[in-house]
Formats: sequence, structure tokens, C-alpha cells
Amino acid sequence: MSTPQTNDPARNGRFLRALRRESVDATPVWLMRQAGRYLPEYRATRAAAGSFLKMAQTPELACEVTLQPLRRFDLDAAILFSDILTVPDAMGLGLYFVDGEGPKFQHPVRSVADIGKLAVPDMGSSLRYVMDAVRLIRRELDPKIPLIGFSGSPWTLACYMVEGGGSDNYGKVKALALNEPAAMHKLLGIVTEAVIAYLSAQRDAGAQALQVFDTWGGTLSPAMYREFSLPYLARIAAAFKGGAVPLILFGKGNAPHLDALFDSGADAIGVDWTVTMEDAARRNGGRVALQGNLDPAMLYGSPDAVRAQVRNVLDSYRDGNGGSRDGHVFNLGHGMSPDMNPDHVAALVDEVHRYSAR
Amino acid sequence: MSTPQTNDPARNGRFLRALRRESVDATPVWLMRQAGRYLPEYRATRAAAGSFLKMAQTPELACEVTLQPLRRFDLDAAILFSDILTVPDAMGLGLYFVDGEGPKFQHPVRSVADIGKLAVPDMGSSLRYVMDAVRLIRRELDPKIPLIGFSGSPWTLACYMVEGGGSDNYGKVKALALNEPAAMHKLLGIVTEAVIAYLSAQRDAGAQALQVFDTWGGTLSPAMYREFSLPYLARIAAAFKGGAVPLILFGKGNAPHLDALFDSGADAIGVDWTVTMEDAARRNGGRVALQGNLDPAMLYGSPDAVRAQVRNVLDSYRDGNGGSRDGHVFNLGHGMSPDMNPDHVAALVDEVHRYSAR
Repeated sequence: MSTPQTNDPARNGRFLRALRRESVDATPVWLMRQAGRYLPEYRATRAAAGSFLKMAQTPELACEVTLQPLRRFDLDAAILFSDILTVPDAMGLGLYFVDGEGPKFQHPVRSVADIGKLAVPDMGSSLRYVMDAVRLIRRELDPKIPLIGFSGSPWTLACYMVEGGGSDNYGKVKALALNEPAAMHKLLGIVTEAVIAYLSAQRDAGAQALQVFDTWGGTLSPAMYREFSLPYLARIAAAFKGGAVPLILFGKGNAPHLDALFDSGADAIGVDWTVTMEDAARRNGGRVALQGNLDPAMLYGSPDAVRAQVRNVLDSYRDGNGGSRDGHVFNLGHGMSPDMNPDHVAALVDEVHRYSAR
Repeated sequence: MSTPQTNDPARNGRFLRALRRESVDATPVWLMRQAGRYLPEYRATRAAAGSFLKMAQTPELACEVTLQPLRRFDLDAAILFSDILTVPDAMGLGLYFVDGEGPKFQHPVRSVADIGKLAVPDMGSSLRYVMDAVRLIRRELDPKIPLIGFSGSPWTLACYMVEGGGSDNYGKVKALALNEPAAMHKLLGIVTEAVIAYLSAQRDAGAQALQVFDTWGGTLSPAMYREFSLPYLARIAAAFKGGAVPLILFGKGNAPHLDALFDSGADAIGVDWTVTMEDAARRNGGRVALQGNLDPAMLYGSPDAVRAQVRNVLDSYRDGNGGSRDGHVFNLGHGMSPDMNPDHVAALVDEVHRYSAR
């Protein structure tokens, strides 16, 4: 835990180069929820802050926890520490947390009338704390390490907005989509505008890559995915296509929709572990970069088992990508959990770089 | 809510005929968790019993709740009301329930030593209450309505046995599989023997079809699924192949593995809603019957929306099955939830029969 360990000039830009499918010296790696409760220093910051929201809304604290995993591990990117629900909160839904129950909204969106009251929030006021955090992190972070900004996808944000929190079966949001499809599309349209404004503001504040988390798109049938998630992802991708910062679309359970996602206009597609990287890369045929896809639960294996699993993922990608490891960003297929062992993360990161070195 | 509404002799055996891919007068339908808390009469039986386990372990009460949905709806099959964890409970793990938290085990399997102590339970003693329930239901149920017996899959039972209850990421069971694969295979082998004995005893007691629920197989990577779930499903299918009762293998998230499942030896494969029936039927090419696959959350839509969704599923199957509706058992892609409206279930069942009538 000293300074970031980026003393190798050759790795500079490894992550951004891989997103452009350019050749790199080794496969870059970062991990979803790499800043989190599995790190004792995170738990200390969280305890001192008093609440999760206080930590996320205070730029100095968000900066501190963003940098913590970079001090421990030879990661190739940092990701802004923030909550996925900042945008609906700024729309007036009243985000709050109950210990052990996850995020909740005081004013969920339940009716056509509720949807009529929604507007794109002003990025310079109600979401200024996020942009301040981005600017501060860019100042404090090793200049060789790119910073990823992020947002939830329109469908995923709509899930929380309508359900009012997590859900077992997304009954309320799916009922709204079925019974009031025009209202649902209006909701998704407003959220999409807000997401584009939010990601643009993060880019302008210094984020060098952007990721959209479509965490709950995989809960939809193919027909509903094509109607209620994919078009809004594509609208976001179109807004950033050819711009200065690459866009990654991650989706849990998105394997059935990869062909459409490869043509969505995004620079990279993130996949979970229910598809092999070989299959994803073969179907991709070099259209975009791919990010993924180790099952996070593999971190519960021994360090040797973790290393073997890492090699399998790296080789799987290569086998589907014409024998080349380029165009691959190593990641988990979903976020880390609080009970994971930091030593196993160190083994993972080391093995990615060691085994993939060109 | 009078007597079962099976006054139409033509429908006799509709469900069993569809499982054999024989022609039927209309597509048969049953619903996973059709006996459950969404029915007021179920809640009354549950309240009188005092506990869920008491209800499941008392043949008269299990019989009563099994029959309840058949009194309301024109369903084509009954399914034994029981818990998925009866077999590990009979192995001595000590099943109990905490309100709002789902099932738990007092003695989870955590080590190689724990696995060494496991044995196939005697069906005639510790699981006799299940067979008594099957015999009683067969006596009480309209003879025209087949009774389905069921079990959890080896992998799914192992998840509960090792985790000690539900889990967010199956870290303990996956760690055991990674770190001690030989022990994990020993565990799965014993559970598979127990499942075969359990299903055989249900068949001998009067069950006319059998379903295996691989609820958590879809949480595995393709490589781990092929190692830790599929071979044990195939072993069960082989044990019942060509026998008197058809076997259905249902798997949540099993779409990536359908080709292997179609060749597993099972008579029918149940799928969830993340794959279209058209795609599943096309890949199947008539090898087995297919069961599914409406997203259960569609039941939160209006009755008209439910009917439209039912028609989509029926047409999707037909389109992938060379224009024929035969070989299809209509079902949800997962179980029902307590807050669903029985009137919407009535609309679903009616629309399946009305729209698919040959």
C-alpha cells in the first residue's frame, strides 16, 4: 500500500489501447466493485464517514476509496466510486439506504402521473458532487492510470425507480411496461437523456472511458429486451460514438443479445460468465473490444485455483479471437463481494499480466 | 371452486401425450408453484397448519394444497406439494425455516469430512411422508389429471447443502468445487443416487411424470456446468429413460446448454423466458418435448396483456417447431410469487387452451 505501482512505461494506456483493439504488452485488468467492503481500508473510510451516502457524496472520500485498490493492486484502470442511483436521486426520488437491504427510494415512480413529473436533472447543481469527485480523482490518480466514469442503464435505473428498491421478479416495472408501454418509453427516454448528460459531464470533468451497467437487462425476455433495454443502450452508444472517450456496455445476462450489442455503436461490450469468451469473441469477429468474464465467485477458490481460472478466461478469448489476445479487457462477470480475500485479488491481477504478457 | 373441471374426455392425458410429442386437442398447461401463497385457500391451510414444514410433512395437508389450484383452474397436471429440500433433510442436515429468509440447514456440508458422513436416505422411513402424500393425492385427484413428482437437481441441492441456505453468489459451494473437486463429485454422486431413489419411490407411489428442478445450474460458467451439473442430470435421465413415466429437466438459465440437454435422455426440457420458444424449438428439432416459458412477472400485467403474452409464447413455439403446436407443455419460466392475482392465472390458463385448440 504505497504509491500506485505503474513504474512500467510500456503499460501506459494499456486499458485505453485495448478498448480500441490496438496491440498491448499485456492484457489490461480492472474489477467491477474493485473499491469496496472487501478492503479493510474501505471499511475504515466508510466507518469514519458514518454512512455510505455521505462517503459517495463527499468528493474527498469518494476519491480516497477510488484510489484504495490502485494502491494495493497493479490494476490498469480506476473506476469512479459512486452509487448507481445518483441520477434518479437527482430527479427527486429520494435515495436512502437501509442496512442489509440495499438502496431504496422515498418516492418511487408508480404511475403515468409520476412519470409526467420527471425531468433531466441539472448536472451542475444536483450532481455537481460527482463531477467534483471526478476532477479530484484525476488530480490525485497516477496520470498513467485511466479513470472510468459510469452510469446505470436506462432499463436498470427504471427498475429501481419503479420498484422503489431491489426486487425478486421486477413485477412492478414489468407490469408498467406491459400495461402502459407508452408511459414506460417516456420514462426510459427521459432517463436516457439524463444518462447521456451525466456521462458527458463525467467525460468533461476528466473521465477517460465510460461504462454503462445494464445490470437488470438480463431479467427481460428477448422481445422485451429489444423493446425496453437495447434501443436505449444504442441511443447512448450513438451519443458517444467516434468521440474522445470509449464507451463500454456491460450487461449481466446479455449473452443472448450479443450480436445486436456488437452493432450498437459501443466501443466495447462487457459480458458475464454464463457465456465463454471464446464464443463471445467468435460471434464478435473483431467488431468491438470485449470485457470480462471471470465468475466473481472464483475468487473464493485458492490463489492457485484463481490463477488457473484466469488462464482459462485469457485462453478462451484468444481462441475465439483468431489466436490474438488483443481487444480484451480482463474483468469479472459481475461485481466483487464483501467477504472476498484481497490476497486472491492480488493473485488474479498478477496472473492476468504474467500469463498474457506478449 | 367446485370439483375439478375435467369434464372434457378429449383432454384426458393431454399433458402426458404432449410429453411424448403425440398430437393433442390443445396445448396442456400447468404452472410452477401453482399451489402457493397467491391462493387465499393456501394461506388458510398454512395458517391452520402452523408452519410450512408441518404442512409439507403432513400428507393430508400436502394433498389439500396440491389440489387447491386444480379446483380453481382448468390445469392439465397437478404437482406434488413438497419442499425441494426434503432429501438433504432426510440425510440429516436439519431443515428449518426462518420467516422471510427462506430455507436453512442446521448442519451444512462444509468439509470433505462432512461429505464422508453422507449416505443415501431410506425412502421407506425418513421420506415416507412424501410417498404417503403421493398415494393420497392420487386417490383424491381426478383420475384424468396426471400427478407430477419432483426433486431438486444434484447441483441445486448441493448449493443449499453447502451454503446452508440461499446465497447471493454461491461462493461456498463454488469454492468447494474449485478447491476440492473430487469431494464435490463425491457429494454430487451421493445426492444423485438419492434423487434417483426419491423419484423412483414417487413413481412407485403413483406419480405419473417427474420433474427435476435445476434452479441454480444457470449460475455456473459453461465449463463448470458441464462438470458439476449436466453429468448428474444425464445420470438421472438415463435411470428413467424408456420407463413408464416421462422425465422433465427444468433449468433456470439453461439456454446456453440446450443442445446437450436435448441429448441427455430426458423426455422434456423446461426452459426459462430468456430464450424464445422458437429458438429452443428450432435447436431441438423434435428430439424432446419442450416446456415453458412465460416470464412469471407477466402475470402482473392486465388480463388482456397476459392473454397477448400467452399467444406470443404459443406462436413462438409453433414457429420453431415446423408449424406444429405438438410437443409443447405451456408453463412459466420460473415459479409464481405470493402477490400474484388468481384472476390473471385464470386468464392465462383459459387463453392457452382457447388459442391453441386444434
